[in-house]
Amino acid sequence: MTKFDEATRAIRVDDTTYDVCLDDGYSMGGPLNGGYLMATVLRAVADASAHPHPVSTSAHFLRVARPGPAQVVLDQLKSGRTAAMTRARLVRDGEAFVEMLVATATLDGSADPDWSDGPSVAMPGLADCVRLPDPKAASAMNFSARMEMLFDPPTIGWLTGEPTGRPESRAYFRLAEPQDPDPFVLAMAVDALPPVVFSAGARGWAPTVELTWHLRALPAPGWLTLIGGGRLISDGWFDEEVEVWDSAGRLVAQSRQLARLGRG
Amino acid sequence: MTKFDEATRAIRVDDTTYDVCLDDGYSMGGPLNGGYLMATVLRAVADASAHPHPVSTSAHFLRVARPGPAQVVLDQLKSGRTAAMTRARLVRDGEAFVEMLVATATLDGSADPDWSDGPSVAMPGLADCVRLPDPKAASAMNFSARMEMLFDPPTIGWLTGEPTGRPESRAYFRLAEPQDPDPFVLAMAVDALPPVVFSAGARGWAPTVELTWHLRALPAPGWLTLIGGGRLISDGWFDEEVEVWDSAGRLVAQSRQLARLGRG
Repeated sequence: MTKFDEATRAIRVDDTTYDVCLDDGYSMGGPLNGGYLMATVLRAVADASAHPHPVSTSAHFLRVARPGPAQVVLDQLKSGRTAAMTRARLVRDGEAFVEMLVATATLDGSADPDWSDGPSVAMPGLADCVRLPDPKAASAMNFSARMEMLFDPPTIGWLTGEPTGRPESRAYFRLAEPQDPDPFVLAMAVDALPPVVFSAGARGWAPTVELTWHLRALPAPGWLTLIGGGRLISDGWFDEEVEVWDSAGRLVAQSRQLARLGRG
Repeated sequence: MTKFDEATRAIRVDDTTYDVCLDDGYSMGGPLNGGYLMATVLRAVADASAHPHPVSTSAHFLRVARPGPAQVVLDQLKSGRTAAMTRARLVRDGEAFVEMLVATATLDGSADPDWSDGPSVAMPGLADCVRLPDPKAASAMNFSARMEMLFDPPTIGWLTGEPTGRPESRAYFRLAEPQDPDPFVLAMAVDALPPVVFSAGARGWAPTVELTWHLRALPAPGWLTLIGGGRLISDGWFDEEVEVWDSAGRLVAQSRQLARLGRG
């Protein structure tokens, strides 16, 4: 079992309750990464569903979550031939961190698309992309150590005082440990990039209010390509869209989140 | 009170229950339009919240809804200074049609954007856009009569056997009765276009499984511009994104839905 599988493990207590242990390894200076929380909740949802694949996940983030034991509580809303619908929440001591609605279905891993757009932005090759400098140990950005990301250089220009001036963030992504991507890794990948607003000059913790992502195909082994952008920064709010392409050139996930601008 | 305000009215029964009457005027050959259902539920959510504006709405569509009395049942998940979170469902006789998660906040109607992208596609002028032919009375497409839509001509080429070959749908939009757009009109507008897959050659009822939309600004009076597209049609599923621009050229709403291909 990989570290990621272990950290997202959901142990069935009964039909509606799963025990989880939120892992400090996925924290970002204290709070846990939202994608990691979604992955953990989706383990329970998929286990309890007649369908294995979380095709559509809407997550509303109520409170910052910190490491330690917690529960996933499920309500089955519908179980159909094509799709099942589940309400899920991540709770500790009766207080919910995240509330989610999830549609599960059974995807055909071998289906060829009827129609597909290409990536919205062309990425340079892996060899022309760059790593972020190692985070200072004191910052407790444990999350960064759990994955390898190779960035499209202009989109991390903000690190050296050269933001591009528009919301964007792009990188190749894989787990630091040898594990092929699966739908749970994708749940984390859609929330793994630095906030797109850093490239537009913003700073500071940018709390996600809502994130919806769709699983569009089962990912092939190898690197994922994350292409993040946004359309509007206004009134303290911004949107962030991430498209995830697999090594076979397929669109495997699409996300959009609405988040608050940091005050940093 | 306009027909739309009347049709989406939610009457408070108690802190968690509102009575509504789902109006046949917003049906599409039987089933009610999903955007109309969202607008009706959001009336109750906004009424019960300390914040007036539904900034983020995730709706999972469980069953087809038909006209008649129904209830909106609310659970307040969080009430914060910046945003409140509500779980809402539309039910009749104990059976839910739609389950939603909604974040409400208080938008500043006069805020200038810090950064805004432009429309993803340039629209021709109003005078160069065209109406759909009147639906046959027998089809009971009552929904169409409640609004005026002027289409970008290529995106309705599918009507005359000339689909563009890619998922797209674009139109100017306003209610048929004199009413300025508001957040509830926007909830309907994001689900008002013909399915984008019609332009890619698909046919038939395309049931929405999940739709999330974000209110980004309060719309100015006048026509709205709806720009719809999609990225992938595969394995029986497609995505549809709609951006809504107001008459002042502001991005006022963004939506994405995941839907099933029809079998028509």
